[in-house]
Amino acid sequence: MIIDELLRNAVAHEADFEGPRAVIPSKHVAIVTCMDSRIDNFRIFGLDSGEAHILRNAGGLATDDMLRSLVLSQRLLGTREIILMHHTNCGLHGTDEPALRAQIAAETGAEPPYAFGAFEDIDEAVRTAVARVREHPFLPHRDRVRGFVYEVETGRVREVGGP
Amino acid sequence: MIIDELLRNAVAHEADFEGPRAVIPSKHVAIVTCMDSRIDNFRIFGLDSGEAHILRNAGGLATDDMLRSLVLSQRLLGTREIILMHHTNCGLHGTDEPALRAQIAAETGAEPPYAFGAFEDIDEAVRTAVARVREHPFLPHRDRVRGFVYEVETGRVREVGGP
Repeated sequence: MIIDELLRNAVAHEADFEGPRAVIPSKHVAIVTCMDSRIDNFRIFGLDSGEAHILRNAGGLATDDMLRSLVLSQRLLGTREIILMHHTNCGLHGTDEPALRAQIAAETGAEPPYAFGAFEDIDEAVRTAVARVREHPFLPHRDRVRGFVYEVETGRVREVGGP
Repeated sequence: MIIDELLRNAVAHEADFEGPRAVIPSKHVAIVTCMDSRIDNFRIFGLDSGEAHILRNAGGLATDDMLRSLVLSQRLLGTREIILMHHTNCGLHGTDEPALRAQIAAETGAEPPYAFGAFEDIDEAVRTAVARVREHPFLPHRDRVRGFVYEVETGRVREVGGP
């Protein structure tokens, strides 16, 4: 089992532990991005332990669960800025969601009670996420919310401009 | 703005880019954990770019959005094992959720349409997440799902045993 291999690595990390940090992220920033295996936020953004909240789901979408998490990040844990970052070569980009649902229904006899969130245009998907966060009334800080695309081919972070 | 500082770091990272990797995580594992700023999954689990999906929300809870993401991780992107990891000193641990809701309602005139997911017992919360994933019928691979607590004071990863 691969999990056992990762646990051996975790024992090695414990011996090399960087030391405790405060629960409040010292840079007061939250980063929302995709679960994609090629996005190492600490490395990309030059972060150390204790500096930034990292939130990740399939696509980096601004779902209700992400909004819930951002509200907690700002109201309980003091963050004030938000990075929303999608990426090229995403599994949700151009996915045929009706076909996926039909396949699952054929296999299991039921359909998932949620949309998967496939999208066609990556910049438009980023703008949608930015708009959703900026319009969320329960977030106290919405003036520093910016959208980006991470290019997995080059390592470049590209800001997504206006509409 | 802190975001500008992080973007300067991202430019430096681009010059040091580790090279492209495939979209399928090579270790076929997904890790679900909290947004907490002290959890660097790549470092803790000894991961390189391209090896594992990383999913993170407030608490590391197995919400519908996490289940959506895990279904995509397994069905579109080939993962077969799941690590679910909560952590000590979590912002949701022991939080007074009714008080938080009342504060938000007083400030904004409305209540969020989602629960925040505060919990009292961390091991019990991990077991709840493991059970929810194991019972989710749309996930094809549910035999290698294991629960852990990350101790932010020591860097230790502790497995949460039976009920």
